[in-house]
Amino acid sequence: MVSLQTINSIPLITSDADLAAEIWDAAGKTQVSFKDGDIVVVAQKVVSKAEGCYCRLGRTEISERAVQTARETGKTPEFVEAVLSESVEVVRSVPGVLIVEHRLGHITANAGIDRSNIDAAVGDEDVVLLLPEDPDRSAMLLRERLEAYSGRRIGVIIADSCGRPWRLGTVGTAIGIAGPPALVKKRGALDLFGRPLHNTEICFSDAVAAAAVLIMGEADEGTPVVVARGLDWRDTEQTAKTILRPRSEDLFR
Amino acid sequence: MVSLQTINSIPLITSDADLAAEIWDAAGKTQVSFKDGDIVVVAQKVVSKAEGCYCRLGRTEISERAVQTARETGKTPEFVEAVLSESVEVVRSVPGVLIVEHRLGHITANAGIDRSNIDAAVGDEDVVLLLPEDPDRSAMLLRERLEAYSGRRIGVIIADSCGRPWRLGTVGTAIGIAGPPALVKKRGALDLFGRPLHNTEICFSDAVAAAAVLIMGEADEGTPVVVARGLDWRDTEQTAKTILRPRSEDLFR
Repeated sequence: MVSLQTINSIPLITSDADLAAEIWDAAGKTQVSFKDGDIVVVAQKVVSKAEGCYCRLGRTEISERAVQTARETGKTPEFVEAVLSESVEVVRSVPGVLIVEHRLGHITANAGIDRSNIDAAVGDEDVVLLLPEDPDRSAMLLRERLEAYSGRRIGVIIADSCGRPWRLGTVGTAIGIAGPPALVKKRGALDLFGRPLHNTEICFSDAVAAAAVLIMGEADEGTPVVVARGLDWRDTEQTAKTILRPRSEDLFR
Repeated sequence: MVSLQTINSIPLITSDADLAAEIWDAAGKTQVSFKDGDIVVVAQKVVSKAEGCYCRLGRTEISERAVQTARETGKTPEFVEAVLSESVEVVRSVPGVLIVEHRLGHITANAGIDRSNIDAAVGDEDVVLLLPEDPDRSAMLLRERLEAYSGRRIGVIIADSCGRPWRLGTVGTAIGIAGPPALVKKRGALDLFGRPLHNTEICFSDAVAAAAVLIMGEADEGTPVVVARGLDWRDTEQTAKTILRPRSEDLFR
């Protein structure tokens, strides 16, 4: 059986927070004890907050491109400038929608920049939250700390909600991975009748992220950490970058 | 806590199988007792098998369009003809890849047509498995039967693996829904600081399908049914069609 359990009582995370320590403390308080093979799924938002990935809009010069894209999308030039500075390419810009390739390689709306639940002590109307600088590294560091605290073999996935081109609503995806596989290749596996299965690769970490984000809630529940237990996985060197489809295979840009 | 449990011991499903009865029997044998609010996630493949959604390739005339698309993709004209007959539009066709809008509205490779794990008694090399005729209806009928057997309020999701344009690997998605919400609208919800959250809608059923398909396995495990327990949901009239992004909002076709 696979279980997914939120770690409750995680306090508001500030820029000087020790996120691993906060997770460990909250797990103790809510009687969640880690076991070998647990995957700790952490919302991108609290990782970004702990790393102080804030940006005050309007502090940098606004490019002509940002002005033009702001006109196309109806977003403010200051916000668009922040999005562009986090991006390597604008994929689509139409009224109300700005989809980019983030510098990390993810195709995402508004470069994953977020204005909700930003710490009132740090933020004001002009402060936004960016994705972590290097979420795979953030996951690796969290993993090391949680393994040291617990003495258990732990995996860490940093999850962010992401839209889809042909389906409404967001689902969680993995933007940082330490331990669990990004992709599980079933290539070469045999079906029930012994025929080889071609091209079957499951995105393990995205599926775990999707389930975890569902039970985190996105509004006022404030439960940004979920422990997934009972999944069958072995350590890999794969990261969230493993999931990115190579540009040469991209048919939809 | 949310749990996901496979129902083991489901036999090979044939065209005359009573799928609801098989699920109920297997649940009894493996000591899975349904509870109010359980969501039973069923792999598309066994639903299609139980409904006899087989197609023998080469039985119909092959259109000029199929011949041309076969040339573009390197697939056989017979297979392409079957894909086209299940589709309303070819979205992309390049060597090795044929992405269509299925008549049900899903954008999917090869119209979801599958050659793996096809019942040896029915299939041969030329027989393929199509998606169910109306998976929302299949889900509704399964739900009625499982609720009657168990006396519990059950939700049913029919799940299929689907690729993504910018991310490698497949994840489970919901192609049939009876009971649980397709989308959970958080529009109007307040964040932790009381500011409204805009445009936040989670695709509940896709997230449940993603988690369930992950633990079903896709190769020789043969566990096509998963019970998801502990999720917070209320009955809706939404179906898998609710998830489809309207063509007018589609930026990627």
